[in-house]
Amino acid sequence: MRLFHYQTVKAVDAGERTKGVKVRWLITEETGARTFAMRLFEVEPEGYSPLHTHPWEHEIFILKGEGIAIGEEGEHPIKEGDVIFIPPDERHQLRNTSDEKLMFLCLIPLKPTH
Amino acid sequence: MRLFHYQTVKAVDAGERTKGVKVRWLITEETGARTFAMRLFEVEPEGYSPLHTHPWEHEIFILKGEGIAIGEEGEHPIKEGDVIFIPPDERHQLRNTSDEKLMFLCLIPLKPTH
Repeated sequence: MRLFHYQTVKAVDAGERTKGVKVRWLITEETGARTFAMRLFEVEPEGYSPLHTHPWEHEIFILKGEGIAIGEEGEHPIKEGDVIFIPPDERHQLRNTSDEKLMFLCLIPLKPTH
Repeated sequence: MRLFHYQTVKAVDAGERTKGVKVRWLITEETGARTFAMRLFEVEPEGYSPLHTHPWEHEIFILKGEGIAIGEEGEHPIKEGDVIFIPPDERHQLRNTSDEKLMFLCLIPLKPTH
């Protein structure tokens, strides 16, 4: 068993085409995971993840804050306790539209989905 | 994209050898998941999950409350924001040792790990 607080994992810049987004890779292959990885994202006010598409799914749980999720059918408000499933190949983006930090878990498969 | 609040998913009894545990299956194959499932557990004070072993891993995030995680090396206190990785075949149990509800996400692979 590996047990640690999420804040003990370094938050790193989430990369290109993001604004004000840090990511902590909580559970990865290094931890021992074989199937999927757990990441925690922190998005500053007015920040956003990239509007992008990829061939793997996302399983998301909103921990804190408010914002919008943009999918192929438009925008949806998001708040603490919301669950989002984004299937492979669907264009998506999460944006913080509030004055507070938006925090969410986003899990992805470690191996190609197709 | 599928988006819903966790409370819209029915909480069902978590089954044999548990005490005071309800589970909501948030993301499953029915949702469209191909690789892993997201479940949310709610454990009443003095409640516990079974002390058991199985050939798949757990990826856990503690959302709320306090308790203990029992692994092969003994007991560890758990609290909000803690992350737990339980590898395949490690005996484990989570117990609520507080006066408030213990809530956590627990994700598992959909296909056999080995």
